[in-house]
Amino acid sequence: MPFDPSTLRYNEAGLIPAIAQDRTGAVLMMAWMNAEAVARTLETGRVTYWSRSRQEFWIKGETSGHVQTLVEMRVDCDRDCLLMVVDQQGPACHTNRRSCFYTAIRDREEVVIMAPMA
Amino acid sequence: MPFDPSTLRYNEAGLIPAIAQDRTGAVLMMAWMNAEAVARTLETGRVTYWSRSRQEFWIKGETSGHVQTLVEMRVDCDRDCLLMVVDQQGPACHTNRRSCFYTAIRDREEVVIMAPMA
Repeated sequence: MPFDPSTLRYNEAGLIPAIAQDRTGAVLMMAWMNAEAVARTLETGRVTYWSRSRQEFWIKGETSGHVQTLVEMRVDCDRDCLLMVVDQQGPACHTNRRSCFYTAIRDREEVVIMAPMA
Repeated sequence: MPFDPSTLRYNEAGLIPAIAQDRTGAVLMMAWMNAEAVARTLETGRVTYWSRSRQEFWIKGETSGHVQTLVEMRVDCDRDCLLMVVDQQGPACHTNRRSCFYTAIRDREEVVIMAPMA
């Protein structure tokens, strides 16, 4: 079946959550896409989100150089969430860490488990 | 720093997306939690979502037996998304597949890449 981004289920703002995971299995980040961002990501191979704060397309790495190249896009059973397998250049997080999920809850305490990349 | 679920950033419905990943790195599903679901998940070690369709707590596996046991909860840099490392008994997906992300986009076509579990 040919894939049509308009068949995904978007929220009231027209957005769908998109999880980025690298080939090692590490979950790097979660951000949002609209239908046009989904289409652009597939067409260009450059992962493109919709920035809710700036209200504009956000080609990941365009300013930072920390590019995400799409390996494969996957759709979940409810068609309301995307998983993107990506090749991530450098850190995915704005804190310069590989992943945005660098804080763990251990023994009811917040613990930073990942250092910024050199 | 002691972790307080009320310090997370919830959407206008009081919900935060929660990604479940098993120890092999496979992303199993994404669902939603409210602050009480976050607290219950940490207290009980049984991953507990908020069902938006049923408007009730959803202790994963309570009816299906496909329990998710929490290994570690992680918080992202913006405090608006959770990653849960879990031990998943059986399939995470209601289609009986290990993961909800069983459809890939390959050459612009939707392709089912995972069979239901026996």
